[in-house]
Amino acid sequence: MSVQIHTLSNGFRIVTENMPGLKSASLGVWVGAGGRHERSEQNGIAHFLEHMAFKGTEKRNSLQIAEAIEDVGGYINAYTSREMTAYYVRVLEPDVPLAMDVISDIVLNSVFDPSEVEIERGVILSEIGQSLDTPDDVIFDWLQEVSYPDQPLGRTILGPEERVRSFTRDDLHAFVKEQYTPDQMVLSAAGSVDHDQLVKMAEAAFGGLQRREARVLQPAVYHGGERRVIKDLEQAHFAMAFETASYRNDEIYTAQVFSLALGGGMSSRLFQEVREKRGLCYTIYAQAGAYVDTGSITIYAGTSGSDVAELSTLCIDELRRAADDMSEAEVNRARVQMKAGMLMGLESPSSRCERLARMVMIWGRVPGLDEVVAKIDAVNTGGVVEYAARLCASGVPSLALYGPVAAAPEVGVLANRLAA
Amino acid sequence: MSVQIHTLSNGFRIVTENMPGLKSASLGVWVGAGGRHERSEQNGIAHFLEHMAFKGTEKRNSLQIAEAIEDVGGYINAYTSREMTAYYVRVLEPDVPLAMDVISDIVLNSVFDPSEVEIERGVILSEIGQSLDTPDDVIFDWLQEVSYPDQPLGRTILGPEERVRSFTRDDLHAFVKEQYTPDQMVLSAAGSVDHDQLVKMAEAAFGGLQRREARVLQPAVYHGGERRVIKDLEQAHFAMAFETASYRNDEIYTAQVFSLALGGGMSSRLFQEVREKRGLCYTIYAQAGAYVDTGSITIYAGTSGSDVAELSTLCIDELRRAADDMSEAEVNRARVQMKAGMLMGLESPSSRCERLARMVMIWGRVPGLDEVVAKIDAVNTGGVVEYAARLCASGVPSLALYGPVAAAPEVGVLANRLAA
Repeated sequence: MSVQIHTLSNGFRIVTENMPGLKSASLGVWVGAGGRHERSEQNGIAHFLEHMAFKGTEKRNSLQIAEAIEDVGGYINAYTSREMTAYYVRVLEPDVPLAMDVISDIVLNSVFDPSEVEIERGVILSEIGQSLDTPDDVIFDWLQEVSYPDQPLGRTILGPEERVRSFTRDDLHAFVKEQYTPDQMVLSAAGSVDHDQLVKMAEAAFGGLQRREARVLQPAVYHGGERRVIKDLEQAHFAMAFETASYRNDEIYTAQVFSLALGGGMSSRLFQEVREKRGLCYTIYAQAGAYVDTGSITIYAGTSGSDVAELSTLCIDELRRAADDMSEAEVNRARVQMKAGMLMGLESPSSRCERLARMVMIWGRVPGLDEVVAKIDAVNTGGVVEYAARLCASGVPSLALYGPVAAAPEVGVLANRLAA
Repeated sequence: MSVQIHTLSNGFRIVTENMPGLKSASLGVWVGAGGRHERSEQNGIAHFLEHMAFKGTEKRNSLQIAEAIEDVGGYINAYTSREMTAYYVRVLEPDVPLAMDVISDIVLNSVFDPSEVEIERGVILSEIGQSLDTPDDVIFDWLQEVSYPDQPLGRTILGPEERVRSFTRDDLHAFVKEQYTPDQMVLSAAGSVDHDQLVKMAEAAFGGLQRREARVLQPAVYHGGERRVIKDLEQAHFAMAFETASYRNDEIYTAQVFSLALGGGMSSRLFQEVREKRGLCYTIYAQAGAYVDTGSITIYAGTSGSDVAELSTLCIDELRRAADDMSEAEVNRARVQMKAGMLMGLESPSSRCERLARMVMIWGRVPGLDEVVAKIDAVNTGGVVEYAARLCASGVPSLALYGPVAAAPEVGVLANRLAA
């Protein structure tokens, strides 16, 4: 294992992993500041800030940022999630120092020129429009809102149009000042990279950041409920969620094994029962997602308006059945899928870079593969069955429905069937 | 270069590349039979057939196919494009023989059980519904139809609902018999793979297929024109295409360099002029795509109903400007992007496997990276400018518009502006 971690005196961390044989590298800065770090009136600003990083720094304008990376054939991008913002780049080996210079420049030295703020507002409003035209984006935003109502974690990442219309340069500066603290930032790099070189460059770029007061995150409180919007779409979009463990709780491994067995692949129960045996949908899956203090198991499917009632009931029945007769073979298959998926994913420098950053953010270290494999192997059939039974007894789930969904049962009806 | 190719006596080809250091492999069978090999009354059957491959063979039912691969943590999938259908799998090294057995089984021994055909019909109708709810799927189908009207290449891959409702087991058998001929099939494998082992397995599985008459493909004839559908969507979706070289013509390299400089990244002209300077869109790009006898340069953008007229005109103006003043620096950057993108892509076994299959299908061999790099380097600024001028003079492009698009100029107006 060639993972190396270094912490600067201000708390900024550098994690690297050299991957022999590669001629390229992925590197980026992950910041523990995302949608749920926003106050209500700030909703959308973490994402707005991420956009502004590409709109000009003290030494590069927007075109020069893009040219710096694309002139050497590299690729630069960023994303904002509910708990973090990431700025990352993929380049060939000789261009790692350049990539490091550009990434640190856009993270630290964005100027938020007011005319650029105005232009970018239009871009983000267009991004919101694009999201609203995509039913399976919309439905997951609603599911999140139903699960965590009136809380930072329940709000959208893009923010509501009226907020996006109002943000100013001062708002952006204020959010950076509050949230972009060095102990919440990680430089991660994987592929053809040199640890000492990156530490030296990170020290020069990020070493001067002032440590500040630790932030207090509003704890998530899970609710159940329903949001149903009837619209003339081709498909009835169905999404249902249950609360589960946070990523700081080893129960997340049980949740992941369970979600794979329930709806993680073509051999999973939902895929077999709903799609393969009955032909009710093209897309159906279950997945487990986690945050620092909560998590969720989500089921999604798209079906026709005439099949949405049957599909809803089937999903409930499959959850109940999992609590009855989940087999050793299914649990074993899910464990193997998790382990193999992890191994295959790590052959790519970008997914490895992402994993390093996340592990350092969560644990302050990078658990070895053996350690993770042991935790996956510790999940047994009894534990999965017991976990499924707890989900079934956990009360009202969150439900989001969009399209020709008038015939779908109410969430209370589904909850009763689940508990019966 | 560790690429090895072997041809069986019936014309079936095997191409492999061992990638040292990897613990996994990607392998699959690519078949030169896709949407454009269908007669009008068959439209959608190549894709239907691809679905049926997972619904049962002489020795495995649908669940057993999925379990065989997922029990070892692997991943199996397939896709249908206009010129080919691919069935592929990703597994860890020890499971390559198993993967080969499953892939050859589903490609060769599908039973098309009539009750499974009925069930899968429902799945595909749901997939069509999902596609119709996705504006940027819909608009590309329309663009294709406008570009190649009343021709196999202009039809959708999923097929129209009424055709999908009508297909029978006999229709599926007939399409396989006509199209799945051994000289049109390639087994491709990359990663931790052994050439001799795969040749031996391929010989046993595919060696008995009968060579048949070469098929004649209906040559593509490019048209221009417009399809505009006004609908109450958040975004105005705009897509425009011009005919360009096929992949058998080295001009495709000029087309690709041009499309990168025009709209391939953040430093490209369209991104800078339309998004970065004016904030008119979130998504905008240009790309070059190619078939055996034709190709296209496509521009796509999503914007608001009030900006779609300005955006349309800007795209035309950028095309004209490219024919005037495309710079050496921009062309050089596009060449570097193409080369670096290719190198970085090849670090993944799945993209390498895909490239091997395509190269063998097109050329009967796998051009070395040096050879491809030399062709990219042969594209010069004069050639790109001359190419852009030819596009501008090429007459009426294809145009597809969807959403609040009433204000967009007609295609004839855009064509006149382009030629002016």
